[in-house]
Amino acid sequence: GAGADNDLCINQAIVFIEDAIQYRSINHRVDSKSLWLYRWYYSKTCQWILSLTITVILALAFIEEPSSLSVTSDVRYRLPAWNPPCGLTESLELLCFLVFVLDVSVKSYLIGWKEFWKNKWLMAYILTLIVSLADWIVSLSFFCKESVRIRRILRPFFLLQNSSMMKKTLKSINSTLPEMASVVLLLAVHLSLFTMFAMLLFARTKDNQQDKEWVVYFRNLPESLTSLLVLLTTANNPDVMIPAYSKNRAYSIFFILFTVLGNLFLMNLLTAIIYNQFRGYLLKSVQSSLFRRRLGIRAAFEVLSSLKETPASAQQCCVSVGALLQVLQKAEMDSRCKQAIMRSLKMCSCDQLSAAQFQKLFEELDKDAIKQHPPSPEYQSRFMQKMQFAFGHPYFGYLGNVVALANIISICVVLVMDADKQLSERDDFFLGAINCFFILYYLLEMLLKILAMGLKRYLSYPSNRFDGLLTVILLILEIATFAVYGFPHPGWRPEFMGLLSLWDMVRLVNMLIVFRFLRIIPNMKFMALVVTTLLDLVKNLRAFAGILLVVFYAFAITGIMLFKGAVVPLGNTRYIGNKPNAFVFSLWAPFSIKKVVVLYFKEKNVISWCSAHFQAEVIYCLLYALSVLLIYRWAKIYFVAWWLISSVIWVNLFVALLLENFIHKWDRRCQRESLSDIEYQRTVELMFRDVLEEPTEEELMEKLHQHPHLQLCR
Amino acid sequence: GAGADNDLCINQAIVFIEDAIQYRSINHRVDSKSLWLYRWYYSKTCQWILSLTITVILALAFIEEPSSLSVTSDVRYRLPAWNPPCGLTESLELLCFLVFVLDVSVKSYLIGWKEFWKNKWLMAYILTLIVSLADWIVSLSFFCKESVRIRRILRPFFLLQNSSMMKKTLKSINSTLPEMASVVLLLAVHLSLFTMFAMLLFARTKDNQQDKEWVVYFRNLPESLTSLLVLLTTANNPDVMIPAYSKNRAYSIFFILFTVLGNLFLMNLLTAIIYNQFRGYLLKSVQSSLFRRRLGIRAAFEVLSSLKETPASAQQCCVSVGALLQVLQKAEMDSRCKQAIMRSLKMCSCDQLSAAQFQKLFEELDKDAIKQHPPSPEYQSRFMQKMQFAFGHPYFGYLGNVVALANIISICVVLVMDADKQLSERDDFFLGAINCFFILYYLLEMLLKILAMGLKRYLSYPSNRFDGLLTVILLILEIATFAVYGFPHPGWRPEFMGLLSLWDMVRLVNMLIVFRFLRIIPNMKFMALVVTTLLDLVKNLRAFAGILLVVFYAFAITGIMLFKGAVVPLGNTRYIGNKPNAFVFSLWAPFSIKKVVVLYFKEKNVISWCSAHFQAEVIYCLLYALSVLLIYRWAKIYFVAWWLISSVIWVNLFVALLLENFIHKWDRRCQRESLSDIEYQRTVELMFRDVLEEPTEEELMEKLHQHPHLQLCR
Repeated sequence: GAGADNDLCINQAIVFIEDAIQYRSINHRVDSKSLWLYRWYYSKTCQWILSLTITVILALAFIEEPSSLSVTSDVRYRLPAWNPPCGLTESLELLCFLVFVLDVSVKSYLIGWKEFWKNKWLMAYILTLIVSLADWIVSLSFFCKESVRIRRILRPFFLLQNSSMMKKTLKSINSTLPEMASVVLLLAVHLSLFTMFAMLLFARTKDNQQDKEWVVYFRNLPESLTSLLVLLTTANNPDVMIPAYSKNRAYSIFFILFTVLGNLFLMNLLTAIIYNQFRGYLLKSVQSSLFRRRLGIRAAFEVLSSLKETPASAQQCCVSVGALLQVLQKAEMDSRCKQAIMRSLKMCSCDQLSAAQFQKLFEELDKDAIKQHPPSPEYQSRFMQKMQFAFGHPYFGYLGNVVALANIISICVVLVMDADKQLSERDDFFLGAINCFFILYYLLEMLLKILAMGLKRYLSYPSNRFDGLLTVILLILEIATFAVYGFPHPGWRPEFMGLLSLWDMVRLVNMLIVFRFLRIIPNMKFMALVVTTLLDLVKNLRAFAGILLVVFYAFAITGIMLFKGAVVPLGNTRYIGNKPNAFVFSLWAPFSIKKVVVLYFKEKNVISWCSAHFQAEVIYCLLYALSVLLIYRWAKIYFVAWWLISSVIWVNLFVALLLENFIHKWDRRCQRESLSDIEYQRTVELMFRDVLEEPTEEELMEKLHQHPHLQLCR
Repeated sequence: GAGADNDLCINQAIVFIEDAIQYRSINHRVDSKSLWLYRWYYSKTCQWILSLTITVILALAFIEEPSSLSVTSDVRYRLPAWNPPCGLTESLELLCFLVFVLDVSVKSYLIGWKEFWKNKWLMAYILTLIVSLADWIVSLSFFCKESVRIRRILRPFFLLQNSSMMKKTLKSINSTLPEMASVVLLLAVHLSLFTMFAMLLFARTKDNQQDKEWVVYFRNLPESLTSLLVLLTTANNPDVMIPAYSKNRAYSIFFILFTVLGNLFLMNLLTAIIYNQFRGYLLKSVQSSLFRRRLGIRAAFEVLSSLKETPASAQQCCVSVGALLQVLQKAEMDSRCKQAIMRSLKMCSCDQLSAAQFQKLFEELDKDAIKQHPPSPEYQSRFMQKMQFAFGHPYFGYLGNVVALANIISICVVLVMDADKQLSERDDFFLGAINCFFILYYLLEMLLKILAMGLKRYLSYPSNRFDGLLTVILLILEIATFAVYGFPHPGWRPEFMGLLSLWDMVRLVNMLIVFRFLRIIPNMKFMALVVTTLLDLVKNLRAFAGILLVVFYAFAITGIMLFKGAVVPLGNTRYIGNKPNAFVFSLWAPFSIKKVVVLYFKEKNVISWCSAHFQAEVIYCLLYALSVLLIYRWAKIYFVAWWLISSVIWVNLFVALLLENFIHKWDRRCQRESLSDIEYQRTVELMFRDVLEEPTEEELMEKLHQHPHLQLCR
């Protein structure tokens, strides 16, 4: 009937508006039941459960068998790790898989069959689930004794497919791949030509004293390639040329030429290419988000205009204010926006809204949330007003900064003086006394500021919140210290009592004071610019970080599987097994990969490296490195791949994004300076607002007519 | 008289046009004698003598006393260096100084007194000369025995002041310094806060086993600062956290946070800032060159228009064609341009030229020199025509590339097979035979190409010249080999005869073949783009490289003076003295500085580093490093400064320029592709031509009226 039809239309409009708010695609089923399912699927609870499931399945690696999470990373001191009984992690896994099966079926149903066959991500999702479940069954039928578990490597895919931002970023990276591949090819050509040159240049000679370079670095093709590849990472930079340079200085020309061409030119060319490709990336992604929002709102308008109750003018498509109010009340959105839209709807005296008016109403969604700080309290007495003026003045804040700096300097001085003292000689009286004084000052400052600004206004500034929180923690720590150890007096010795020793307490207080010093950041213009750029960058980098996590996870799991059992510590060790966590650690920071490459590549150096850096653990270190090297000589490929992905490509992506963000910000610094007293809640969308193009009505309508499920009457 | 006046005007016009061609400033004296002096000063001979003098004075460091240029860098095997007698280098120096005195006086005279007082570079030049001469006198009065020679550090200034490009670049760098200083300050704050954190975190504990991190890396403030500074260079990346990580995995968070903030964010921020500042640098510099050119031409026009012989119309300023022809004949310029201008002058039927016409004539100077390849010979016989078609076809070139690749692969295979053979087992027959075959093919290819294209057309392609030259050298080498060692036969052994052994000959041939393989570059589109970008970059980088050379020279000389006598090798060494060249070497590649910093900073590691990399020379290495460290603890400052300048700032400048160049090139790739068969002789000026702004007539005239010596009649 017409009522049911109207209800459907209203529901459709609600969903479309919610889509617009969340920048979601509107290409889903639009019948009543599907709409209910859709709203349920995108409800906070459901999405939260999905995220939790993904977290759980990724976190399983920490407790599963070959992994052994422990406090120390030293195999010799480590307690045997807790191995969960067979079936525990597996049943958790099954639970997760069931959630994913539910997720994929709801998703597939909602976009409809036709769309399903076009959606490669969904197909890959189903395939991954099938493979994982098959692997799970195999695993159980072997009673968890099988060594190869493919499903673990596939796990990060679940994280990937759940984030549209990551999928978009991946697409961007994908389109840059041909150019990157060209540069990598160039690097390979560079490397191989220079390798041939090196082999001809540093050939074996009759005099054994003379061909040291050949013996150490260029004995055969794989050795030579390795030496030069490592030189490309700059890890063996002066070492590799020392023997040849000792013989004849002119040999250094070869190495300098190689380094300049490879490192300065080709590596930076990669940066240039990636930056060039990513220059428009942020803008394009924001532009497509804007299109989705406009499309959702337009779809809501079209649906509402087809309501039976408003057949007033067939020519001009309109929406009644009543229907819109009904939709707004039911739609889930930010309460500030909702109120603003309601307000402007009431101000508008007309009864019918055109498409343009309708769009205009929802522009509230794009607006900055201008944060209004609550007003200061108004005091009656002259004295209080003067107090308020004095302690609300910025100079009082600067004074606080100066005091914090003085505190830092005093800690520094004490640290320098105490550096060479034995623990028993140390007297914490001085530090305890001055810290006590400074913390009292901080407390006073906080109270005076609250007095001047009022609690609400004080708390509305993030820097004050940071400040106040640390001051309160410091105060609590200090009171606890005094309660346990008494007031500071000469000869106030660090004795162990209770949870923490006095020395630990003092250290903790000092660390917090150093941390509190960061409050000066907003006071320095350039620092503030840098910090806001970095914060923006972190927002924009989430997708990249996610992809890095995916790659890292896959690499770590593959590495654990490949190098399992490579480490068997000797002697008086309590635990014989493998050491996957140390391995995962070696992949940690992209920078440390250089050392790892060297370690794994050059057996000769392992001995000295181990003796220099592990001292007592030499044997264990050697055994680890050598066993990995001897058993898995092809491990080189694995490490070179990881170096390329983490150190070369990802770091360059990061640099490209930083350049993009920073240059954009820097250009606008001058314009913004006048508005600096208003705090904006900045988003990427807002940063680009003045360069974004509004989609035209034709584009929107064309897209709407392509909707697979929505039949528009016109 | 009028005749003399006219001659003066003609001479002025000639000089102004030459200024325009060379992008020189026109603000110099313009009377007859000065003009003659000016042309003499800027003549090729004079400029060549000046450049030679600068080269000589810079090169003196290689033979002067503390330096000891030798083939080997190993102190133990080195012959005592030749020390020039006192007075030899000093008299050479005096000669150079006299040339510089002449140079500075001519320069000062030519720009006139008023301008001289505004020109800080000239003042600094004179000051440098005075200081150098004073130091020279001191040196001679001590019979060359004094240790501090300030004039050596000042030498690179002569290089700097002679290049306007370098001065301009230095100005640009100078204007970037405030922003760079901000980031360096941020880095310092980052470093010091983290150092305090580290000292509190890794404090001494009661258990000596537990505070390994404190003992090794964070014992006191300078140690901690050093550890973290080196971590910032990523040189000690995983090592520094191993002891703490062994104790508790959570400690790695501290190091990862430090690395991510310092290395990923702050260091790359420096790149972003430098790139942002240098984005417009090239364009601005080209724009100012264009202005100078237009100004010179306009000045020539104004001067010519004031000639007495053309008082035709007082209103409209004009230049007679005859006068211009006279000027053109006497002016020194590219003959191609001269002819083109003459041609268009003759085509223009008018007798008088307006300012616009005059400028237009000289636009020929800005134009690309489109290179026309000479035509192929036209053969009469059908057979020859078919031959010509076949061997002139690109596919024949591709075949040549394939053959070259096959040759490379064969060499590679032989190298791999011979890698583990003893010298006595080696048989060069196979390689000799195939190389003989391949070289015959290359010869045939060259001859056939010459047949098809004619010698002139063949030589007009740079790739053919490269190819042909290498083929001829290979042929000569091969013939020489056969003449000395006979034709290849099984058991063709490397015996030493004459200048080079057979083995050396074969190696040389192989290296040349590998080098010849580079001819494939123009055939691969992306490679060609990269290579042309790199060549452009090299052109634009000359100024930067010059500045780096200046800094490097100053640092090396300072270092030699500071660390003189630091190395005294022990034992059976023949030469006791110092080793400044090894020191200079340690400054070579900006990348090796990391290792140097580590070496100089961490005494503890020196032992293992020395034993790992110098094997037999351990004692000498140790002594060297330790003596430097113990005697000159403040050497840290020197090395940190060098690291900042070479590794951080210069590399970032390079990246900025590369980004600028590459992105500009990449953007225009599509437009250019249609024109790719015409070879342009590209210059920076041409690259930016379509974005350059022509200076307006008002700007030019205003600048002309500000000329300190030229009195314009109007």
